[in-house]
Amino acid sequence: MTQPMPTRSWVTSANGHRDFPLQNLPLGVFSINGSAPRSGVAIGDAILDLHAALDEFDGEARRAVEATVGGQLNAFFELGRGPRVALRERLLELLAEGSKLQRREAQVLHLAADCQMHLPAKISDYTDFYVGIEHAQNVGKLFRPDNPLLPNYKYVPIGYHGRASTIRPSGTEVRRPKGQTLPAGQTEPTFGPCARLDYELELGIWIGQGNAMGDSIAIGDAAEHIAGFCLLNDWSARDIQAWEYQPLGPFLSKSFITSVSPWVVTAEALEPFRKAQPARPQGDPQPLPYLLDTRDQAAGGFDIELEVLLSTAAMREQNLAEHRLTLSNTQHMYWTVAQMVAHHSVNGCQLQAGDLFGSGTLSGPQPGQFGSLLEITEGGKKPIELASGEVRKFLEDGDEIILRARCSREGFASIGFGECRGTVVAAR
Amino acid sequence: MTQPMPTRSWVTSANGHRDFPLQNLPLGVFSINGSAPRSGVAIGDAILDLHAALDEFDGEARRAVEATVGGQLNAFFELGRGPRVALRERLLELLAEGSKLQRREAQVLHLAADCQMHLPAKISDYTDFYVGIEHAQNVGKLFRPDNPLLPNYKYVPIGYHGRASTIRPSGTEVRRPKGQTLPAGQTEPTFGPCARLDYELELGIWIGQGNAMGDSIAIGDAAEHIAGFCLLNDWSARDIQAWEYQPLGPFLSKSFITSVSPWVVTAEALEPFRKAQPARPQGDPQPLPYLLDTRDQAAGGFDIELEVLLSTAAMREQNLAEHRLTLSNTQHMYWTVAQMVAHHSVNGCQLQAGDLFGSGTLSGPQPGQFGSLLEITEGGKKPIELASGEVRKFLEDGDEIILRARCSREGFASIGFGECRGTVVAAR
Repeated sequence: MTQPMPTRSWVTSANGHRDFPLQNLPLGVFSINGSAPRSGVAIGDAILDLHAALDEFDGEARRAVEATVGGQLNAFFELGRGPRVALRERLLELLAEGSKLQRREAQVLHLAADCQMHLPAKISDYTDFYVGIEHAQNVGKLFRPDNPLLPNYKYVPIGYHGRASTIRPSGTEVRRPKGQTLPAGQTEPTFGPCARLDYELELGIWIGQGNAMGDSIAIGDAAEHIAGFCLLNDWSARDIQAWEYQPLGPFLSKSFITSVSPWVVTAEALEPFRKAQPARPQGDPQPLPYLLDTRDQAAGGFDIELEVLLSTAAMREQNLAEHRLTLSNTQHMYWTVAQMVAHHSVNGCQLQAGDLFGSGTLSGPQPGQFGSLLEITEGGKKPIELASGEVRKFLEDGDEIILRARCSREGFASIGFGECRGTVVAAR
Repeated sequence: MTQPMPTRSWVTSANGHRDFPLQNLPLGVFSINGSAPRSGVAIGDAILDLHAALDEFDGEARRAVEATVGGQLNAFFELGRGPRVALRERLLELLAEGSKLQRREAQVLHLAADCQMHLPAKISDYTDFYVGIEHAQNVGKLFRPDNPLLPNYKYVPIGYHGRASTIRPSGTEVRRPKGQTLPAGQTEPTFGPCARLDYELELGIWIGQGNAMGDSIAIGDAAEHIAGFCLLNDWSARDIQAWEYQPLGPFLSKSFITSVSPWVVTAEALEPFRKAQPARPQGDPQPLPYLLDTRDQAAGGFDIELEVLLSTAAMREQNLAEHRLTLSNTQHMYWTVAQMVAHHSVNGCQLQAGDLFGSGTLSGPQPGQFGSLLEITEGGKKPIELASGEVRKFLEDGDEIILRARCSREGFASIGFGECRGTVVAAR
């Protein structure tokens, strides 16, 4: 018999918390006062130190906590769904109102504001997809007004390999990259700091269990291979990208840094927030059989509201509120995460626990929903005006970009992802 | 005072060995009878077990050997040039004729034929370049006969991120990948085993010391960041590639396996085999300043002869000699390895010890020099005939591809790289 799920926590800041109420329980890696990084769970304004509370866990849940040793969640991700669900169920008991764990609060809980967050896992490979169909159309229109989507788009979950070594947690500064660019009207490139620095709003996906090289993950098994989710800012140097990307794709225009929010929001926490896909209209082709799973497609993609905010140095000096650049939703993903996993491994490519996927930029079709400045300003042609009196075509030094996400549904507590922040600093 | 370099080894199979004479001394990771992988040096038909011989080393050379503990050379690569050179000098003494180490032969030497080779390092990121200008032209001609090279080619060392998780040592079987392809004349893709499986002949480059994110490696410092070299087969599914690669580059068409030869041939061993670049003709643009280093460009690229052989199952049954598909040379690299390192990091991208670069396919301009079947058969239009009576447009199940390399120069002992082998097995 299933117990009714508790809804209130003895950690009082969790009750009604915008991101981390009792219903979320994301995992991450933190340190405090220069200590070794260790695993924790976000609850309200606090972090539960999993190892300090180790003796509260047994069975599968204890196995899960033990796999988080060493300041990296890879071994925990590799365990798959069973131990992760057992951990969640035990955490719900321990953190619910009335739990005896409250007596040990001083020992097991830290204020998040006192902690530093780290990457949750060692990332072996990072893949950036392109499943945001509105972004693909918006960008395609800039180059091919009559035919914005390429013929493969509605058959292939397009993706490409990204750089793993420069993925960093929220808060890491974004050094403006230098590189080659081709000035308008010229035939020879020049070298210097990027002049068209942009953000891209993406959902990040943490891979759980891996597969052996040569094996494929069937779409029906994909859930076992998805550990959780984060926000991802795929910082992009548009001028470097335009000059370098033919014929093999983006390279240095993307590899200077990629920022992620540090908390891993689990598939279990997001389960109530799936919704059948409106992005695949009548008349679109059926997915090929290896991408077809009626249960997955009936459950649909996630309904997660996504937001991008800009704060310039002048705005901070004038105490002006952040400027909202984007309000979008993960419903603009043309492919589900299960489809991305099945596609990535269909050729026998080995996925490993702790691999990271980016969804690609998640724009909506309307102004106000565009997930990059490239789309918002039409490649710099239509600058935006800020309350500070400044204008922006692309990002300037001192600009901070903040990504947020929020899941809401009638009858369920809202949950969020925390933030993914980055401030641009001058080129060296 | 420099001692004259010894030329003959007490390991008699080394003297005149096609790949591993005393002058080469490449490093690798091996195991024997299921033992834990450990570091070794190839010498003739044998492998010197570095740890069994540890007490023969002191100072910088000992530091180098100690950094090879654990069956991965990453920490050794990170040490940079000094300890690597000290190790080489001591190995030359220990393995030269007359060395007392011969008395310990049974303890420190294994027959290579009894050993299994492993990847030499944990590869964090893999980047595939496109610096083989003749390949770029040959492939470009198939699509754009009048304008085969894109405008960025002679300014930008073009590269893209590859998949690190599926890099394997020579001898690993090559499972034919499955995927989406667009049949000629159709508008809807089908799914099935790749029908246009190809090899690509490349030089692999192992990265030595890394750089911090945000820093760039100046071209004059690049040598400190290059640990050594191998052969690399960038197996390619041409039909999957043609359908998937727009707009973000190759993905599943390359990520099913990449094979490397297991021995790391050092920059020191290759030093005599550099030669000023013939590939950059008069009238080509000067490299931008960050890619310009007169010492590097005067030394030039490597003069390494490269060979690809094919053996089909029928040829092996009939005891027929391997069929030579390609005889090419690293002189067809338009950019030096130092230029590749400087370019990769100019945007602040962090390189790490054990990262791997591929050069891109190293074709020559003439028939017989093409480094892929795509070029040899003009995309399947001109099948090749084999002594077995078979024909090939692309690779069939049972076909084995063997890459070899050889450096020769008047007055110097020739050295080689060993082999990079892979046999195609049927799709699952």
